[in-house]
Amino acid sequence: MDTIDNSVCDLFVFVCGIIRFKCVGMAYFLCEDNKMDDKNLVEKQVSSKVIYDGFVLHVREDVIELPNGEPASRELIKHIGAVCVIPVTKEGNVIMERQYRYPVSRVITEIPAGKLDSANEDRFEAVKRELREETGLTADNWRDLGEYLPAPAYSDERISMYLATGLHKGEQDLDEDEFLEVFEVPLKDLYEDVMSGKICDGKTQIAILKAYEILKDTI
Amino acid sequence: MDTIDNSVCDLFVFVCGIIRFKCVGMAYFLCEDNKMDDKNLVEKQVSSKVIYDGFVLHVREDVIELPNGEPASRELIKHIGAVCVIPVTKEGNVIMERQYRYPVSRVITEIPAGKLDSANEDRFEAVKRELREETGLTADNWRDLGEYLPAPAYSDERISMYLATGLHKGEQDLDEDEFLEVFEVPLKDLYEDVMSGKICDGKTQIAILKAYEILKDTI
Repeated sequence: MDTIDNSVCDLFVFVCGIIRFKCVGMAYFLCEDNKMDDKNLVEKQVSSKVIYDGFVLHVREDVIELPNGEPASRELIKHIGAVCVIPVTKEGNVIMERQYRYPVSRVITEIPAGKLDSANEDRFEAVKRELREETGLTADNWRDLGEYLPAPAYSDERISMYLATGLHKGEQDLDEDEFLEVFEVPLKDLYEDVMSGKICDGKTQIAILKAYEILKDTI
Repeated sequence: MDTIDNSVCDLFVFVCGIIRFKCVGMAYFLCEDNKMDDKNLVEKQVSSKVIYDGFVLHVREDVIELPNGEPASRELIKHIGAVCVIPVTKEGNVIMERQYRYPVSRVITEIPAGKLDSANEDRFEAVKRELREETGLTADNWRDLGEYLPAPAYSDERISMYLATGLHKGEQDLDEDEFLEVFEVPLKDLYEDVMSGKICDGKTQIAILKAYEILKDTI
């Protein structure tokens, strides 16, 4: 009887292992875990219509089933994904960018960032590439700052955030249609600018607040 | 001669006043100021094409002129704008929500938030409405936490962020197609979850980091 119980137990552990492996393999997001009792919140896809298939934006209009069984529509953007990095010098300064953002009709202050080159591009390789292209910098030390969903109500974009230190200067290598100014600001000043509402870009606010929290006792 | 000079001067001041008034009136963003020397970064609209005019998303494909005079295209979303609020109880707990976000196919943890009802809706009125509808709460004290551009590379959405304290319970009043769970978590725990990458929603990360910085000595 013990033997059977042990076998059943082993089988159970084995199956759990497979399920766990599959879940980990399927896990799109590193942050947060969904719960077993989420069925009272989940929306199911009924149909999906491609509205626009652009270079950056891929727009869909889906019919879904609400948790109460009623139909509803959802408009959404499919986005390839992106990375961003807050590069901090040994003096405690951040290498920042000023860039014109056409949708908001103004130049804004941002940390280096960019889209993935392909959907399966390694995000760490992508962020090293973006940092080098936009600022000429390479870095000895990288720290994962987590993920950022800019607008989960209507976009599946996921931005991976990094902190880079141990910086080395090199040559900038911008895309043909990329125009930006690179400049250096003390992290402490940027932290104060975020707290007083002077920096409006989302990923930049988070990266500054997190980096300041991590580095404040060393700069 | 003095009289003429004074008249010219008065006219100059008057014209400057009009320009200033128009600029202030046109100022879309409270954060950041554009500089006079930004013409080496600015992109000019050449033409604009409406791709999709949905309920939430309005997609455009514009031809623009780059700072070097070359043409390029820009794909963008026009969004009505939104508000969000981090409501903190006198015990130092935050009233949070779990909500299914269809574009990312998962339930995520967020602070109360919502779109404006109309483009010219007062943002402070909107946030009071959203807090009451989603959680039943009203608040005695409100603090402006600044603005948040979720994705300025492709969306003009601007989210105004607030901190609410002095909370009073009331009746939740959700939209017909809105399903969410409301729960309470210590701000300190949420701060640790943001720092360790467990919270992935952008506006929620910022609001928690800012609110913790503001309230940490009082909770």
